[in-house]
Amino acid sequence: APPVKPARLGLCAACHGADGMATMPGAPNLAGQKLDYLREALRQYRDGRRDVAVMRAATGPLSDAELDQLAQWFAAQTPHPQAAP
Amino acid sequence: APPVKPARLGLCAACHGADGMATMPGAPNLAGQKLDYLREALRQYRDGRRDVAVMRAATGPLSDAELDQLAQWFAAQTPHPQAAP
Repeated sequence: APPVKPARLGLCAACHGADGMATMPGAPNLAGQKLDYLREALRQYRDGRRDVAVMRAATGPLSDAELDQLAQWFAAQTPHPQAAP
Repeated sequence: APPVKPARLGLCAACHGADGMATMPGAPNLAGQKLDYLREALRQYRDGRRDVAVMRAATGPLSDAELDQLAQWFAAQTPHPQAAP
């Protein structure tokens, strides 16, 4: 089954795109990224082990369940070609 | 023109795949990732601003030019579907 659209998706989408294709310079694509990598990266950002201010602010209020929902969402998206940066 | 195959690709490929589709648990896909993101991530790993032992060891001996060649290579690869993790 496709993943549930996360309630918290809007904030992520501003830089990473709702479909995981980044729209902001410096932001990585997330579409089709490995689920285990996304899950761990989100926890690292929230807990400050990976120190990026905007990501700490974005993930700080989120529960493990909310982070997992976001990881599942982006891992399930299909990457598509983009214009060169 | 397609990017030159980096001389240092072999070490990266062991976990991320020569085509940027990861082959090791915990390693992210790199195929089609944003060039600016890859370039910055590689410098952060090498300089210890992003603290991941295996990545620091892998990038430590590399010059900016070598890191750039790797970033260009992986950004130019096309992501393709994988089995779920």
